[in-house]
Amino acid sequence: MKAFQDYYTDDQATCYGCGRNNPLGLRIQTYWDGDESVTRFTPEPFHTAIPGLVYGGLLASLIDCHSTGTAAAALYRAEGRAMDTQPPIHCVTAALHVNYLKPTPIGHTLEIRGRIKEIGPRKVVVVSSLLANGEITATGEVVAVRIPERSA
Amino acid sequence: MKAFQDYYTDDQATCYGCGRNNPLGLRIQTYWDGDESVTRFTPEPFHTAIPGLVYGGLLASLIDCHSTGTAAAALYRAEGRAMDTQPPIHCVTAALHVNYLKPTPIGHTLEIRGRIKEIGPRKVVVVSSLLANGEITATGEVVAVRIPERSA
Repeated sequence: MKAFQDYYTDDQATCYGCGRNNPLGLRIQTYWDGDESVTRFTPEPFHTAIPGLVYGGLLASLIDCHSTGTAAAALYRAEGRAMDTQPPIHCVTAALHVNYLKPTPIGHTLEIRGRIKEIGPRKVVVVSSLLANGEITATGEVVAVRIPERSA
Repeated sequence: MKAFQDYYTDDQATCYGCGRNNPLGLRIQTYWDGDESVTRFTPEPFHTAIPGLVYGGLLASLIDCHSTGTAAAALYRAEGRAMDTQPPIHCVTAALHVNYLKPTPIGHTLEIRGRIKEIGPRKVVVVSSLLANGEITATGEVVAVRIPERSA
């Protein structure tokens, strides 16, 4: 099964958070699980805040790219289109909000589960929960905006 | 002149965003400039979104650590204390909000300017503007919380 990010155009695939062609990036992958989208990511040992805890900026980055990927996938779905059909849909972040509810322990595969709170032709709001070891440690809300197709 | 982060205890100094002892991290440094705090950071070529633009998750990370550092410095200042006095003050992020106003071009030293919107004994709200090439491309608001001193 291909991830949302596997359908990104080469231009998008350079993204530090989710680009398959950025060897130094996080290269997250997101999939549908029913009406929710799911990203799993295992932080590296250097992605630390204070020892034992995951760096909050990494969590924000994961939520960011998870959400723009989910927004694009939701727009394809709303248009009844497969993700490999033209024109490609690409979303960027207009606003990112993260609430850190409790410390996120390092050493676990994190799971981010997203759902669509609002969807219009050009704007999608994605809300997410981030889980570590089965507990929600952070929540996110991202306003993603579809960027106009460039004229070729 | 020492940066706020130079006063962090060894525990804090592991942070991916601002720890002087995390060789793989961003190691940002923040200073007062009058009533504002200033962080300057030059993204690496791999910190890209689409080609030519800086990755939004990096901007969120910079705003995050810039703001918790500013919050701690503001608490020392509010208590009339130098930053090398005991007990150390350490703040963590409770909430992070970033508005992406326009694309942030890569290839510039970014400047993040923060000011204190609200300060209490345990909670500081820091608002920031992020500038690239003299233009504000993103704004941030961080709710930082002072963590209780651990009993030794």
